[in-house]
This record gives sequence, structure tokens and C-alpha cells, in this order.
Amino acid sequence: MIIDVHGHYTTAPKALEDWRNRQIAGIKDPSVKPKASDLKISDDQIKKTLEDNQLKHMKERGLDLVIFSPRASFMAHHVGDFQVSSTWAAICNELCYRVSLLFPDHFVPAAMLPQSAGADPETCIPEIVKCVEEYGCVAVNLNPDPSGGHWTSPPLTDRHWYPIYEKLVEYDVPAMIHVSTSSNACFHTTGAHYINADTTAFMQLVQGDLFKDFPSLRFVIPHGGGAVPYHWGRYRGLAQELKKPLLTEHLLKNVYFDTCVYHQPGMDLLTKVVPAENILFASEMIGAVRGVDPETGRYYDDTKSYLEASTELTPAQKRRIYESNARRVYPRLDAALKKKGK
Amino acid sequence: MIIDVHGHYTTAPKALEDWRNRQIAGIKDPSVKPKASDLKISDDQIKKTLEDNQLKHMKERGLDLVIFSPRASFMAHHVGDFQVSSTWAAICNELCYRVSLLFPDHFVPAAMLPQSAGADPETCIPEIVKCVEEYGCVAVNLNPDPSGGHWTSPPLTDRHWYPIYEKLVEYDVPAMIHVSTSSNACFHTTGAHYINADTTAFMQLVQGDLFKDFPSLRFVIPHGGGAVPYHWGRYRGLAQELKKPLLTEHLLKNVYFDTCVYHQPGMDLLTKVVPAENILFASEMIGAVRGVDPETGRYYDDTKSYLEASTELTPAQKRRIYESNARRVYPRLDAALKKKGK
Repeated sequence: MIIDVHGHYTTAPKALEDWRNRQIAGIKDPSVKPKASDLKISDDQIKKTLEDNQLKHMKERGLDLVIFSPRASFMAHHVGDFQVSSTWAAICNELCYRVSLLFPDHFVPAAMLPQSAGADPETCIPEIVKCVEEYGCVAVNLNPDPSGGHWTSPPLTDRHWYPIYEKLVEYDVPAMIHVSTSSNACFHTTGAHYINADTTAFMQLVQGDLFKDFPSLRFVIPHGGGAVPYHWGRYRGLAQELKKPLLTEHLLKNVYFDTCVYHQPGMDLLTKVVPAENILFASEMIGAVRGVDPETGRYYDDTKSYLEASTELTPAQKRRIYESNARRVYPRLDAALKKKGK
Repeated sequence: MIIDVHGHYTTAPKALEDWRNRQIAGIKDPSVKPKASDLKISDDQIKKTLEDNQLKHMKERGLDLVIFSPRASFMAHHVGDFQVSSTWAAICNELCYRVSLLFPDHFVPAAMLPQSAGADPETCIPEIVKCVEEYGCVAVNLNPDPSGGHWTSPPLTDRHWYPIYEKLVEYDVPAMIHVSTSSNACFHTTGAHYINADTTAFMQLVQGDLFKDFPSLRFVIPHGGGAVPYHWGRYRGLAQELKKPLLTEHLLKNVYFDTCVYHQPGMDLLTKVVPAENILFASEMIGAVRGVDPETGRYYDDTKSYLEASTELTPAQKRRIYESNARRVYPRLDAALKKKGK
């Protein structure tokens, strides 16, 4: 079985974006603010957006299941206040839940959080409770920078974030550390902000001792861990200077990297440097890079093709990356699959 | 000949740091503000700081020459105003010039700029003129984020920066894109801010068309290009979506990566992905990562050892990375060497 731990509903019906634009307009002009019930998306519409897109690619590539969350760049936690984020998160999470009901064998939901720049993370708890208990979400996406590229929140190791961690530990649910759109002109969203956030989050964890307080908390760093595996020697050396244990001890019992790396040499580096136990298969399809690579004739985000071509990995390691690591890191996914006899 | 294009005077006598601390205290309390002439550092003191440190490692590793600039993390362009930065840059650049006079066969100076958050880059021109014309500087370090981790300046492709580019083009002097200390608690200076800045700068260049306006301008992206080579497929794919030419055409006539990557798999990736013509030997010794790697028994920043162990590179490619690329990218270095019959 091949589980892709990183998919977003990037192909949601246009009505969703239109509703969001009206919501944003309503921040300045309450008279145009839409009600949640104004958004009408039928099951058939949802089905079509997936059958024509993600499901088609999954079939072509032989992927079985995607952990599916709201579109990351649309989370935009820097827009409006907590109420705006709360309504928006509720709508987006419900849509992903509906996706999981329509295609229960292919999509399992993960939740975005109703974060808002400057708001107490505690305010996210009710949405986490609903998404895990009612929607069967197996993970959440945690945005370390709800300001959208201005980095005004404390580091992930700060007690500021502890209310969320306590809930995640209680539910045994991992968090993918994933920023949203950059509102800073210096940072291209998918070419700089995403990758920088991955690198930044990892280094925050190197500096801190978060997993002493939360030994069972698990973070997935997407996009192949940003710059981290490429600079693995730098991070080992910095941990050493900071008098931390070896990274394997200090972080790798709690931190995982996905495989959203869009060329063969990058994937080879990841699988050479990071233990296979810490790598989770993912493609972020259909996401940041949608084209076909003229050098290979395949989609850039067909990350399975790079893993298949790897000469580093044993068949047993590939199985771990494709399936068993995900079932270990996302125990609620494992439980749901076992319930179905899978 | 082996030229290291990325060295900083990280081992300067303690008097320099003391003077700087007094300067910073003087921002709030002008009565304690030191005069430039209060700083007393003798030639013998300078000699000792290099003989015991950089020169020792250079001899051990077989490096001939370092392009040597003021300590990057001490530039701290977010501290004080232009006057503060201007005095500080003048002092630091003069020290590196003195290093080059004391060890003319081993150190060639590069200049830090008197940038200041919010100040017009035009204000940097007199320091560039002095450093190139009087001190023989062969390059400058350009900080794309003088705010120190808040990223309040426009992207490098903005006309904001053009006065500096015009001067660099006039002098045929390249810029290394190098940030300084992070004043943002989210970003560890050498573990996140440096690497993020490299990635950010490259993506700004992908988005823009800067080298249409400045076809002969050359940028060196340090630290192995941040995350860029590891995500080369992502950047090729994003350039494609932005309807830009292939990266080889769009950027690689003007953009170079150094080899400050501190483990073998990272160096192997860099040399596999980026054409040898675009790679410049560097170690940033003695810099961010000063320890010995327990896995190899060698210093993390002994980047020559990784290049020597490379099975990818031909001897001719190694010579380019060690010497001829640097002489091409830094023509004033080449001219100075030729004058000495080298």
C-alpha cells in the first residue's frame, strides 16, 4: 500500500475561492460578508474535482491513499482575525471531511487550524477536537508563522504553542509544520517561504528541548525538510556546538521528513542522509510544481518515480517509506485502516 | 592554486568587539560613544589572530588564498542608523585591508557595506569606492535583509538596489549575497537565517529579470546556495510555471554557488546538480560550524576534503572550482594575481 501523507485540496470548486474573496471583502465592509451557508458545493462537484485531478494521477502513479488537508496557501492566517480564520477553517475542514466520505478508500482527512496572527493557540483547540472526533482527522497542519512571512510568533519550542501540543499528544495525532501564503514580497510562497519555514522549524527544534516536555509529540517537516538534509553536516555541527545530543537522539524520535523533493539527486540525498525510519512518502500533488520535467518527461511531483529509481533503498526500506512509517506516525490512520481489514 | 572565496575575519582581536559594544551603548547614551581612533589594534595582534587560526588551517588543508571580509554576523545592519553602520563598516573594512597588507599572498579583501535598515542603498557608494580603489577589494558582501530577520527591504530585483548594482558593474566586482545576525527569535543566525536568505535571494532572482538590466552583474550565493541545489527540480519547475527561460539561461550566467556545505552527500549533490562552471570553492573557515565531525574525524568546514573525495568531478572540473572560476568571477583578483606573476 502506498500512502501519500501530504496532499491538499488545491482543486476545490471555484465557489470556495469566491466565498473566501467575499469573506475577505467583508472584513472591511461587513455588508458583503457571506454566511457559511452561502457556500453551496455539491457532492458531484467535489467528486469531479478529484476524479479529474488527484485520483487520476494516483491511479497513474499507483498511489492508494492521500492524507488530505485544506489548500495550504489558502489558509492565509494573516488575513482578518480569529473569527475570520475560525469560519474559514471550519468550511475548509468540512470539505476535506466530505472528500473522505465520498472516497473513503483514497482520502483520509487532516485539519488546518483556525490560527490567526497574534491569537492565542488555545483558540485552536475546539477545531482540533471537532476534526479528530467527528471528522476522523489523523493529523493537523500547524503554521509556525501565522503572520504570513513576518515571523512574529515565538519559536515552536516556546510555551506559547503548548496548548496545541497537549491536545495533539492526548489524541496521539502528529502535526505537519506547514506555513501558508507569504504576504512578504521578499518571500515567494512555494519557492522561498515554504522551504525557509521547514528549515527554520527544524533549527528551532535543534536549539530547544521540546521533546523532553513532549516525548510522544511528532512533527512532520514537509518539502523534504527544507534545506536540512542538504546541510545535514551543518545541523549535526550546530547541535554539537549547542551541546545537544546527536540529532538521531535529539530529534529523530519525533521528527519526520516527507519526500516532496522534485528531482532524482535531491531524493537520493534525502534517502542517503535521513534514516528510512524518518522518511514518509509524499508528493504534494497537485501543488506548487505542476509541470512536466523536460529532462525526464514525467511530472516534477511524481516523487514515487524517484524513490523507485533509488539505488540506495532496499525493498524493505521502500515499504517503510511508502506505508509502515505513516501507519506508525499517524496511529489514527493505522487504526482506521485496520478497522477496514487493511 | 586553491582560492577560498568565502572567509570572514571571525577571529579579530577582542578589542574590536569591545569597541562595537561601546558604539552600540553610545546609540542610547552618546556620552559613552567611542571615537574610531579609540580602537587600537597592532599589526602584531592581527598577525597572531590569523597565524593561530585561519593560516594554520589553510596550511593544513592546502589552501592558498582567501577572499576575506569582515565577520558577517557582526555586520548587524539593523543596529543604529546609517552613521553607526558607516563608522563600523569603515573600521571593519580597514582591518581586512590591513590583513591583506600583512599577508598579501594569503588574503585578498572583500568589503562589507554600510547598509542600514531603511536607508537608501545609494549611501553605500562611497564605501564601495574607497574599498575597491584604495583597499583593492575584489568583491562586496550585500545584505538582502539589513533589518536582521524581518525582511523589510524590497527584493533584490527591485530598483531600490540598482545604485549598488551600477557601481558593481562599473568596477566589475561581484557581490556575495550574505545576511548578518538575526534579530528575530524565530531564526537562528547560522542555522536558519543564513540558509533561508540564500534560498530567498535565489528565488527572487528566479521571479525577476534582473540580469536583463545588468547582464554583467554577478552574484555569489553562499552556503552552497541554501536549499536551492537540493530542490533544483522545484526551482526548475517554478521557473517553468513563471514562463522564465531554463535556469541555465535565466540565471547561471550571473549566479554562482559556493561550496560551504559541511558533509559529503551535500557536496556530492551540489557538484552533481550545479554545473562546475558555477561552483566556487569556499569553506567559511573559521565560521558557523567549528567542530570536528565525529563521523569523519575532520573539521566539518574542511570542504576541500569533500571535493577531493568526490567521484563526480573530473580533475579539470576541480581546478575550475578551486581556481579558474574564481579568477573569472572576481576579475580584480585575477588581475592582482597576474600582476604578481601568478
